[in-house]
Amino acid sequence: MNPPGLEDLLTCLRFPSVSTDSTRNADVRACGAWLLDKLRGMGLTGELHETPGHPVLLAKNKHVAGRRTVLLYGHYDVQPAEPLGEWKTPAFEPTIRDGRIYCRGATDNKGQLMAHVQGLAETMAKHADLPVNLTVLFEGEEEIGSPNLKPFLEKHRDELKCDVVAISDTGMVAPGVGTFTYGLRGIACLEAKVHGPSIDLHSGIFGGAIANPVTAVARLTAALHDAEGRVMIDGFYDGVQAIADWERKAWAELGDGDAEMLELTGSPALFGEPGYTERERRWARPTAEVNGIGGGYQGEGSKTVIGREAFVKLSFRLVPNQDPDAVLQKAEAHLRKHLPPGVRLEIIPGHTGMPYIMDPHSTLGTAAQRALKTVFGDKIALIREGGSIPIVQAFKDVLGVDTLLLGLALPDCQAHAPNENFPIANFEAGVRLNQALLAELA
Amino acid sequence: MNPPGLEDLLTCLRFPSVSTDSTRNADVRACGAWLLDKLRGMGLTGELHETPGHPVLLAKNKHVAGRRTVLLYGHYDVQPAEPLGEWKTPAFEPTIRDGRIYCRGATDNKGQLMAHVQGLAETMAKHADLPVNLTVLFEGEEEIGSPNLKPFLEKHRDELKCDVVAISDTGMVAPGVGTFTYGLRGIACLEAKVHGPSIDLHSGIFGGAIANPVTAVARLTAALHDAEGRVMIDGFYDGVQAIADWERKAWAELGDGDAEMLELTGSPALFGEPGYTERERRWARPTAEVNGIGGGYQGEGSKTVIGREAFVKLSFRLVPNQDPDAVLQKAEAHLRKHLPPGVRLEIIPGHTGMPYIMDPHSTLGTAAQRALKTVFGDKIALIREGGSIPIVQAFKDVLGVDTLLLGLALPDCQAHAPNENFPIANFEAGVRLNQALLAELA
Repeated sequence: MNPPGLEDLLTCLRFPSVSTDSTRNADVRACGAWLLDKLRGMGLTGELHETPGHPVLLAKNKHVAGRRTVLLYGHYDVQPAEPLGEWKTPAFEPTIRDGRIYCRGATDNKGQLMAHVQGLAETMAKHADLPVNLTVLFEGEEEIGSPNLKPFLEKHRDELKCDVVAISDTGMVAPGVGTFTYGLRGIACLEAKVHGPSIDLHSGIFGGAIANPVTAVARLTAALHDAEGRVMIDGFYDGVQAIADWERKAWAELGDGDAEMLELTGSPALFGEPGYTERERRWARPTAEVNGIGGGYQGEGSKTVIGREAFVKLSFRLVPNQDPDAVLQKAEAHLRKHLPPGVRLEIIPGHTGMPYIMDPHSTLGTAAQRALKTVFGDKIALIREGGSIPIVQAFKDVLGVDTLLLGLALPDCQAHAPNENFPIANFEAGVRLNQALLAELA
Repeated sequence: MNPPGLEDLLTCLRFPSVSTDSTRNADVRACGAWLLDKLRGMGLTGELHETPGHPVLLAKNKHVAGRRTVLLYGHYDVQPAEPLGEWKTPAFEPTIRDGRIYCRGATDNKGQLMAHVQGLAETMAKHADLPVNLTVLFEGEEEIGSPNLKPFLEKHRDELKCDVVAISDTGMVAPGVGTFTYGLRGIACLEAKVHGPSIDLHSGIFGGAIANPVTAVARLTAALHDAEGRVMIDGFYDGVQAIADWERKAWAELGDGDAEMLELTGSPALFGEPGYTERERRWARPTAEVNGIGGGYQGEGSKTVIGREAFVKLSFRLVPNQDPDAVLQKAEAHLRKHLPPGVRLEIIPGHTGMPYIMDPHSTLGTAAQRALKTVFGDKIALIREGGSIPIVQAFKDVLGVDTLLLGLALPDCQAHAPNENFPIANFEAGVRLNQALLAELA
């Protein structure tokens, strides 16, 4: 029998709410509107707030003086589903196999967001109210870097005043191990376009006399790292916060992550910055990563052309105390410095997000640890994560509060990839965790 | 009023005979069948010969002992038309603007092939026969490297016995300047695929711990050249035939090609191997060119993934005395040597073709020069070309004859590119040239 709330999760997943694809704008909005109806039906009051992009959902219970105020954040937008051919079942038709729900957004973030919703519903059904003042904030632009959320926080600063934020949009180190994430990497994206001839040219007739934009973009991409994987951008590592001794020890106690990483990724071998373990590389060291490259003929067989342009999409993952805008400036300077002759470079800056870190041993951190232990037992993990939730830094900057990241994703949930999935057991644990957390924070 | 034969050319162009695209197989065949009907209608006898790929059209007049035998070669297949969005008028609907016919295949090679056909038709209409023994050989696989033509030549060696081959599939240095091409570059193609993780991965969660296939393919691509544009593959330039003094002089007399090359290509600047003029680089120096690169996210905006694989499509243009197979071996060794750790390399060899050179001052070469002067006047050009017609070397190897390359394409005819076109004046000149050539060779 399906657990309570599962049908709602499946309904939520069927909205193809891809925020980066402007042809999906109506689907993003429809998903937000459906969530609002759901929360209103539970007795919360709220509305969808317009932004220059996708709407923000804001809902509350009746706030009572003297209670702690908790803000629950989630996002109802999802990554693009491409390449569609690699999905075993349709990307936007949730399908249950072996106890997991397969669908774009299953784990990132709708499965975890709906665990909030069902947790709230069950607490309210039992007690007619919540033990805290609750603010629910669900946005539709997380996957494009939340461009409108920080302005929204600033505009609604008083309405959003709270003591702490809680988010489930991170991972668990293993099934059944409650995991508290106290740090996230930041991000800075850019696209470099290299322009050469005004049209695609015959590579026999013209080859040898002009620069090939694809060669140029490959040379720029190759110049980002040394042969061992260090980022070669001048000043890239300036000010990077060293990993604390207790962190190195705590992470080492999680066991050897190499075998798991090889199995999860299917890579032929691990590879990364010398001098760090794989967890340290992912959780506490910055990267320069290529998310996409393209230029010239992309089809079957061969076509002997010199393409007129080529692109590379880069993202930098950042750690405390790197500044995303400064990194983008350094990256652009590096690309311009290494640009080969005979082509023109265009830089398109993308979204940015600050890295985040909080003290997991603070009062609120300790409360979160207790809630995790209520649901998962005493063995919990304190970790950082390699992903980015820029909004966490925005909550710190605008509302002055820390964020408790109590994630429910497993390492093999394929977030952002084909066949994304979410275990039903994690959904159920999430529903209980939300109730325990509200009790501990009360 | 349209010149004689133009309507036939337009009909021929409407066949989307893209040989590299297996969904177009029937269109390629239909184009060959239409041409056969046309030649039969003029009084030639012949048929379409099956091959493992697209059919070969072979047709003849009645051969008479004591006459010189001339083989006319052309190809009725065309390059893919992509990117379709860049065509001003539909790629397979010939459209006349400002005296030029715009269509995929207009210049390469249907416009020039139909000049043969119309030239034959007019000579036969006047004289009831031709002054030579004629063999027409039109194939449908030139754009994929003529994989089945050499076996065909070998199988039909006796039937194809001839004194000389004539082809119009090259260029004129300028409008109205008859051009005799006595050398062509060879070609060797390969695709390198780099495989990393078994699925696309979240670049935040996993970035830093595994090698990115796109980075690896970019590093491989960058390792092909030094910063000045020399090819860095060990032994790549071994045995390359030096440019003769008379060639350097003749080509310099064609004037400064730099300004024309900048205008034709629209490139911000010329770029190529140091120590050579732009013509020398294109006509007599070998290249390593990237025809396409791809990996990771290709769509709008950003998607923070590490793609599971990446590819680069390479082609090498070769000059006398490079051997294409040896070059492919050296290239593969170079790529394997430079492969970064943490990924797997797959090499897919592509088609090859030998470079070609003949003496333009030989008896047959001199006859061709006379025919050019009859149509274009005394100022003609002796050049090599940067493109590849592997079949020219095959004629030399199998039939033991030289090929007269009397091309009709202008530098701005956009062969292989969107908005390919052919001037009607060149079609008319070609019709006359074919008649003059038959007379001079008689």
